[in-house]
Amino acid sequence: MKRSIRTDLAMEAREMVQEQNQIDIPGVKSETVTADEDITITRVEVVSPLGEDNIGKPIGNYITLEIPGISDGDKQYEEQVKVHLANEIRRLVQLNDNSLVLIIGLGNWNVTPDAVGPKVVEKVLVTRHIFEYVPEQVDERMRQICAVAPGVLGITGIETGEIVKGIVDRVKPDLVIAIDALASRKTSRIGNTIQVADTGINPGSGIGNKRMGLTKETLGVPTLAIGIPTVVYAHTIGRDSLEMLLTELVDQATNNNNFTQLLNGIDEEHLDCLVGEVLTEALGDLVVTPKEIDLLIDDAAGIIADGINLAIHNGLSLEDVSRYLH
Amino acid sequence: MKRSIRTDLAMEAREMVQEQNQIDIPGVKSETVTADEDITITRVEVVSPLGEDNIGKPIGNYITLEIPGISDGDKQYEEQVKVHLANEIRRLVQLNDNSLVLIIGLGNWNVTPDAVGPKVVEKVLVTRHIFEYVPEQVDERMRQICAVAPGVLGITGIETGEIVKGIVDRVKPDLVIAIDALASRKTSRIGNTIQVADTGINPGSGIGNKRMGLTKETLGVPTLAIGIPTVVYAHTIGRDSLEMLLTELVDQATNNNNFTQLLNGIDEEHLDCLVGEVLTEALGDLVVTPKEIDLLIDDAAGIIADGINLAIHNGLSLEDVSRYLH
Amino acid sequence: MKRSIRTDLAMEAREMVQEQNQIDIPGVKSETVTADEDITITRVEVVSPLGEDNIGKPIGNYITLEIPGISDGDKQYEEQVKVHLANEIRRLVQLNDNSLVLIIGLGNWNVTPDAVGPKVVEKVLVTRHIFEYVPEQVDERMRQICAVAPGVLGITGIETGEIVKGIVDRVKPDLVIAIDALASRKTSRIGNTIQVADTGINPGSGIGNKRMGLTKETLGVPTLAIGIPTVVYAHTIGRDSLEMLLTELVDQATNNNNFTQLLNGIDEEHLDCLVGEVLTEALGDLVVTPKEIDLLIDDAAGIIADGINLAIHNGLSLEDVSRYLH
Amino acid sequence: MKRSIRTDLAMEAREMVQEQNQIDIPGVKSETVTADEDITITRVEVVSPLGEDNIGKPIGNYITLEIPGISDGDKQYEEQVKVHLANEIRRLVQLNDNSLVLIIGLGNWNVTPDAVGPKVVEKVLVTRHIFEYVPEQVDERMRQICAVAPGVLGITGIETGEIVKGIVDRVKPDLVIAIDALASRKTSRIGNTIQVADTGINPGSGIGNKRMGLTKETLGVPTLAIGIPTVVYAHTIGRDSLEMLLTELVDQATNNNNFTQLLNGIDEEHLDCLVGEVLTEALGDLVVTPKEIDLLIDDAAGIIADGINLAIHNGLSLEDVSRYLH
Repeated sequence: MKRSIRTDLAMEAREMVQEQNQIDIPGVKSETVTADEDITITRVEVVSPLGEDNIGKPIGNYITLEIPGISDGDKQYEEQVKVHLANEIRRLVQLNDNSLVLIIGLGNWNVTPDAVGPKVVEKVLVTRHIFEYVPEQVDERMRQICAVAPGVLGITGIETGEIVKGIVDRVKPDLVIAIDALASRKTSRIGNTIQVADTGINPGSGIGNKRMGLTKETLGVPTLAIGIPTVVYAHTIGRDSLEMLLTELVDQATNNNNFTQLLNGIDEEHLDCLVGEVLTEALGDLVVTPKEIDLLIDDAAGIIADGINLAIHNGLSLEDVSRYLH
Repeated sequence: MKRSIRTDLAMEAREMVQEQNQIDIPGVKSETVTADEDITITRVEVVSPLGEDNIGKPIGNYITLEIPGISDGDKQYEEQVKVHLANEIRRLVQLNDNSLVLIIGLGNWNVTPDAVGPKVVEKVLVTRHIFEYVPEQVDERMRQICAVAPGVLGITGIETGEIVKGIVDRVKPDLVIAIDALASRKTSRIGNTIQVADTGINPGSGIGNKRMGLTKETLGVPTLAIGIPTVVYAHTIGRDSLEMLLTELVDQATNNNNFTQLLNGIDEEHLDCLVGEVLTEALGDLVVTPKEIDLLIDDAAGIIADGINLAIHNGLSLEDVSRYLH
Repeated sequence: MKRSIRTDLAMEAREMVQEQNQIDIPGVKSETVTADEDITITRVEVVSPLGEDNIGKPIGNYITLEIPGISDGDKQYEEQVKVHLANEIRRLVQLNDNSLVLIIGLGNWNVTPDAVGPKVVEKVLVTRHIFEYVPEQVDERMRQICAVAPGVLGITGIETGEIVKGIVDRVKPDLVIAIDALASRKTSRIGNTIQVADTGINPGSGIGNKRMGLTKETLGVPTLAIGIPTVVYAHTIGRDSLEMLLTELVDQATNNNNFTQLLNGIDEEHLDCLVGEVLTEALGDLVVTPKEIDLLIDDAAGIIADGINLAIHNGLSLEDVSRYLH
Repeated sequence: MKRSIRTDLAMEAREMVQEQNQIDIPGVKSETVTADEDITITRVEVVSPLGEDNIGKPIGNYITLEIPGISDGDKQYEEQVKVHLANEIRRLVQLNDNSLVLIIGLGNWNVTPDAVGPKVVEKVLVTRHIFEYVPEQVDERMRQICAVAPGVLGITGIETGEIVKGIVDRVKPDLVIAIDALASRKTSRIGNTIQVADTGINPGSGIGNKRMGLTKETLGVPTLAIGIPTVVYAHTIGRDSLEMLLTELVDQATNNNNFTQLLNGIDEEHLDCLVGEVLTEALGDLVVTPKEIDLLIDDAAGIIADGINLAIHNGLSLEDVSRYLH
């Protein structure tokens, strides 16, 4: 049974397959380390076309940081997360002192759960204009960063990928890092799972509508994607509830052939249909978020921005970054 | 089977009871009129304690305007809705030329789906200070309005009801109108159903946490409540999906005693439990909203504010209100 | 005496020269019409290099709409302004049914007086993606519009002109319209003067810092600029106050040679210096705005966006635009 | 010559008198200490009615912290400022373990330079509801704090003082702390001077319009005021420029009787008139702010909130506060 439930997290995609098959997935490698108390890092590598087929994600590296403690407001924990995020980013990119990095903050700054990308753009320490116009003010630990929030198709009338391609052709960065708000499958991941992938952004991923990807193929330069789940689609909640009940009923119906037959006859399309009757999506996508999503988005953007600041600049501390940002 | 699913709409409460019983509900009167194309008005009156028990809402009048066309951006339709809302408000209040009306905008202005009350406060034409300090500037069609957004318990540390009681005792209005964001049961109602009730606000209603009501009993003056659904609880989506499946299975299992017995043995608590496994509410209430909730809230606040402006002021047109607001 | 006081309005630049010389300015044509009650339109044309030198603005057309009634909230007046703005825009551009127009919203969406450009981007009816992806939904009165808010140098690290050039090269519009917040010389113009110029945006104009222009020369396509004053530099207030006093003293000192000599000896640099002692610009540019600037910016953006909507789309009414925007 | 220039800072009022008289001011005591590098604390005490007359501020204590380093983004410096602010607050208040403190955030949350009060309300660690509803979760170092942002007259139609009086009568705090955005005389003070006064808020102070004070007399409980300059009135800039020029001219005109006479004949009213011609206040108060005022207001609110958190709670660290706020 193939599922229609959408997740942007490779880790979840892998889990969804694995929980059905109970075996290792051919073409997909995976390791999990506990980096610090309450920080778990999972590195999934899709190594072959077989792996691509199996979990529905392109060949490449997908690193996930699970940081459940992030909502406690513990500053020290927050700093540890930023340092680990920076380390994982560095694993996937190769830079030298003259490298120029372009940060792309995807999403709509007026739609709270979609605003994490634009907010990262505002919190990243951009320096390209200092190198260009006031080189004497460059701190030798800085590398060149620039950053753009291109907006979304509904506001611009232009595919985000086209805008980014235009800017990349003009600015000629050595690396693009695209930040995006993601949809996950579990509400427990909202705001506390960060995914870093060297495959870039693929069409249709993230919580906005994207028809064109941001990848090395489309942009012509290595493209890293950093994402954080900010919503679960309401449809997912309905589907998961139904499957939990069905699983249970199947377990209990072992001695009742008619019943088992009936239950097995319920196909995925029918379940989607049932949920569709509960959810009227006349107003566009229905999403599930914590009520206090605004604060969560701010925190998430701060962590990702500082992870990037530590990873790209060559030795600036968080203190330094804060000073330069003012 | 009593349901745990939460709705703040009397109309939905009545429907939930009725769809199970297929009969009129003792103690509850109800009439529905089509006011204009695409505007339906339902007036529910709970007339007795029996009615209270039956639908779980106190004795009083509950008027609901269903305005599905509101998301189309048709200005003429919007004006019709405002006029009908004003008419329904006037049905439930008695004012004279010296009456003072206090608008209370409940909710948290930083939490988008909860901000409708504070936004109404900003869009209502307040006039009390004109009567008090520059009476020569009073337009004779104006009545005295004042308006406060008291904030929420988590930010103030004070029960909203206490703050309002303090202000009422000081300002001595003849009528309180409290505006609140509601939770409905169906996503199709979000942003396009308005409820006006002369029972005030009851403890625990609305999407914030309220422990104390705002009613004639607590405040000492007649209290009207105007609410608009801005969220459905994620839990409701899960529960509704499960019940839709169960209903279907029960229908199909008519000739299978064991199966029927099994299905009937699944109680409400167990269903809540299943949904609870899908939803991790570690981050607080999980709510379902359209992704573009910000715009919807603005529109909703504008309609409610103008409905009040037309209802309370005695002959001001929407043009007049717009001019005075600038 | 050449002035250091900055204005982005050609009309003011012309007036500043004229009030000193009391004669027509060679190389500059000018006509003023009263378009409707309380709407005055001034069309300045710089026709020669001499004119450029005289008022410090490049050869081209500069149309100014003075709309002092705009702060009264009169909807009918607002619509008249939008229609006149649309007419003046049409005077300066030549489009056919297949033309593609790119709107550029200059400025920083986080800095209230600089946010008018990005806000126009959100209120313009973009249609390019409809032509591209769902051509069957195109209303035949629509023309192709797309729109981008590129951000500011301090946030992106990239010259705005470079970002725009990259997008123009990719999207290939037939016309660029750049929207910018301006600095005027008089506080009385804030929010109620709109300038349309076919010369594009010149380096250093507007209230942000721009080092590179947006003109036909830099972008390769005709570029219209629409601007509205949202601030007066605090320095201007100080300088204007001083000059008013000096003018008065000079008048009164006609019979006193020493005094006249003394007053005439005060040069511009010295006046700047005096004002500089009053204003400490340690925190960046000091600007003068009405305290209620937020509302004013919203209104201004709405008028400019609708002026563009009426001018570019070929027969859509304001009602149509509102419906399509939802 | 008495000045019309408005300042809300007692320190500036004292300086304005002193620079004219060059002597100590009868009825006013003053001491200045350097608390840390780049933190200067001035404690002005108005001790008698004579002092009141002399500097135009009521009898009481006015403590000013000058913190010019605050815009550098140095976290350590920021913490020092918070600790010093807390110490100065403690000098002026007497609390015991059962004391209840009510924070009042004055100003309009929609008007950026006026939003500092409401923002402090959101950043203060309120605890009263924990003591009331979940006393078992009370940390023994907490004291009871509650907080309200009552809005402004133009939005509520009710004098702020009346709303606060209503809440005070109901909630019965032992101390009120009112936070307000101030107007200063010098742009160099914007955002980097904090005033703490045990005289409360006087009518007409702050940048909003207040007709009624918040003082021990009106509220019935001790009332502390904490303010931070966020604007200078544009009028002040004009007036200061003129006076700087006049002072200079008077110096240079010592041997020219006619001239001296002429200059001395220019009275204050006339200067106001000259500036009035430069400034058209049709749109309401014109204020001077740094263009990046939004960020500055956020920082200011954070410092004041944490100063209060450290001063009122009895031993909570900034780390603790951050943790509890999440």
